[in-house]
Amino acid sequence: MTSNSINPGAYLAAMRDATPLVQNITNFVAMNTMANVQLAAGASPAMVHAFEEAPEFVAIAHALTINIGTLSPDWSKSMLATAAAANKHGKPWVFDPVAAGATTYRWEISTRLIAEKPTVTRGNASEIMALTGHDSAGKGADSTDAVTDAMQAATELTGVTDGIVAVSGETDFITDGKRQAVIRNGHSLMPKVTALGCALNGIIGAFVATGDDPFAATVSAMAYYGLAGELAAKGANGPGSFAVNFIDALAIIDDEHLNRHAQIELS
Amino acid sequence: MTSNSINPGAYLAAMRDATPLVQNITNFVAMNTMANVQLAAGASPAMVHAFEEAPEFVAIAHALTINIGTLSPDWSKSMLATAAAANKHGKPWVFDPVAAGATTYRWEISTRLIAEKPTVTRGNASEIMALTGHDSAGKGADSTDAVTDAMQAATELTGVTDGIVAVSGETDFITDGKRQAVIRNGHSLMPKVTALGCALNGIIGAFVATGDDPFAATVSAMAYYGLAGELAAKGANGPGSFAVNFIDALAIIDDEHLNRHAQIELS
Amino acid sequence: MTSNSINPGAYLAAMRDATPLVQNITNFVAMNTMANVQLAAGASPAMVHAFEEAPEFVAIAHALTINIGTLSPDWSKSMLATAAAANKHGKPWVFDPVAAGATTYRWEISTRLIAEKPTVTRGNASEIMALTGHDSAGKGADSTDAVTDAMQAATELTGVTDGIVAVSGETDFITDGKRQAVIRNGHSLMPKVTALGCALNGIIGAFVATGDDPFAATVSAMAYYGLAGELAAKGANGPGSFAVNFIDALAIIDDEHLNRHAQIELS
Repeated sequence: MTSNSINPGAYLAAMRDATPLVQNITNFVAMNTMANVQLAAGASPAMVHAFEEAPEFVAIAHALTINIGTLSPDWSKSMLATAAAANKHGKPWVFDPVAAGATTYRWEISTRLIAEKPTVTRGNASEIMALTGHDSAGKGADSTDAVTDAMQAATELTGVTDGIVAVSGETDFITDGKRQAVIRNGHSLMPKVTALGCALNGIIGAFVATGDDPFAATVSAMAYYGLAGELAAKGANGPGSFAVNFIDALAIIDDEHLNRHAQIELS
Repeated sequence: MTSNSINPGAYLAAMRDATPLVQNITNFVAMNTMANVQLAAGASPAMVHAFEEAPEFVAIAHALTINIGTLSPDWSKSMLATAAAANKHGKPWVFDPVAAGATTYRWEISTRLIAEKPTVTRGNASEIMALTGHDSAGKGADSTDAVTDAMQAATELTGVTDGIVAVSGETDFITDGKRQAVIRNGHSLMPKVTALGCALNGIIGAFVATGDDPFAATVSAMAYYGLAGELAAKGANGPGSFAVNFIDALAIIDDEHLNRHAQIELS
Repeated sequence: MTSNSINPGAYLAAMRDATPLVQNITNFVAMNTMANVQLAAGASPAMVHAFEEAPEFVAIAHALTINIGTLSPDWSKSMLATAAAANKHGKPWVFDPVAAGATTYRWEISTRLIAEKPTVTRGNASEIMALTGHDSAGKGADSTDAVTDAMQAATELTGVTDGIVAVSGETDFITDGKRQAVIRNGHSLMPKVTALGCALNGIIGAFVATGDDPFAATVSAMAYYGLAGELAAKGANGPGSFAVNFIDALAIIDDEHLNRHAQIELS
């Protein structure tokens, strides 16, 4: 166990005790994976996205996640209304700005969602840089920038959202503008499975639903997720068997195992 | 083999002989899983949902399934029109009232679909109770009520639909208002994999497409499905490998195996 | 290695070196599978389909795929606009006419997309026959016609698209109107996994993005894909474990392995 003041196992155990109902407005590619990831971890997912019911539903959910991976006007309208409803009801929500810099439309909707002040914003380096107007080499959902290049952008973004900003990659970086964490868990096969990045936000949503410190909850969620990647790689022959092992690993890891293997550095 | 007057293996064999074309208007989370479940079992799935073509398509399908898991106005309109078209063409159809009690919108559309008299309505205890106005603790897609609490609601609902009502859970309960069946097949990992409940309706659709007795066909489909869960659990390390084994098991189970291990109690 | 003038391994290696960004406007069932197939093969998928951004995005993509599996008016509008944008920017695009003959609506949109002259049109025998007005027994996404019956239809279709037409099945047939190829790789479990046909077009898209000869690129992509099916069948217990092995196999096969086992006959 690395020396630090966050106990990620305690956050995992608290999440499992609570079985939080997490509402997800996510993209078509990620829906099935995100639901399976949340179920395996111990949360209760609900994919409710229509404008006609999503703002109503968030009142009974414990957390909300919003992901712009496959955006369209109907969905954008619902995302904005549901984010506002989450704020009104005091429910934490997590934003995933997938490929935010790729098109004009995507950038505009991302900017409007950021103005709703997500509790946590988690993306890859290219996405976080695009949100703050930094030059980025990335165009699609795959990042082509290094996490270290996005640290300054992440800190700037916390000034806009008054929340947590997390950059995932080979190492992860999380900040609330004052505290910083670097996480060294994870495996190189993770970006070879689609939607694992998106689904991570589902886990962050489950953790912040129950923790009273969203920074520590986000750090714990990301260490847990990276550790599942490490376990999953054992015995995997490629990205197909890795994806199967990954779901198993999320269910297998317990609080003690997480505390023993989490690689968290706080500053 | 338990003593009963239903031969589930005969229904499985008849379904495989017919390779029924089953049209599914289902939710975004379940589509891929439902198609794979139907293919593995021996049916031919078709995900055709747009208002512009779904009512036309049902004329060439052998059965229809409708699932409100990810509802929106365009889809609701198509569901209602296609259910009516199925009735007009004499095609059996199966309804899945996912989280029917969770929002006003969902409850309204469910009520209108119930009025179209589905051949089979299959949900979890919370959903079946919500449809008949019974108090339910359930809010999302995961049931928080016991199947025994929903038996009365299920019987009441057959009076509205003039069809079969099935409640799935640790034990399953099926009734047509006169006959009752309890099925004890299944495994506790099944609700840990998203969309397995939804996909069950795809199997019921395939079975009722070919059987002349929808009650016996539904009972057979649910015993087959639960048995696949039991087989899948062998050698599974968690919900990921369980989901893979489950698809294999649907293809492996034959009529003799099903008749030997089905746990059906009729009354 | 069979004697022929196409070096499929060279196309695979070139694709991996380029890591092409492939934009996919595909159906809800196939999205997750297609993304995983493209990632495992070595390409970078982007599922961008909304009218508000898809025509803009194609300017930065290296290839485009369009699939009408789950059609609706908003999507049709975007498909037509994005195909036109791909042509304007000189980007190759691949068309999948899923169940083109099943409904009036589907046939009309297919006909309009064909008029946009896709670089490659790949479907099963029933679909290719439907596009050229040949009588077909097929109605859903599963083909009920033999590839040999569709060879004439395929050749006719090249006269409309000025492109490549490929028919997949137990053996595959590819033609540009002058050259013909038959591919004997593949496995009978492939059509038992949903969306593997759809996802094949994602691989063709990745290969034509980098090759200067779309005919040879398409042949190479289809031999590679069929060979992955052969590898995946080893040790599979059914369609579930086959699907997992298939993703692994796409990542494992290298250029030498492909050249040694490709079963390509040119004429």
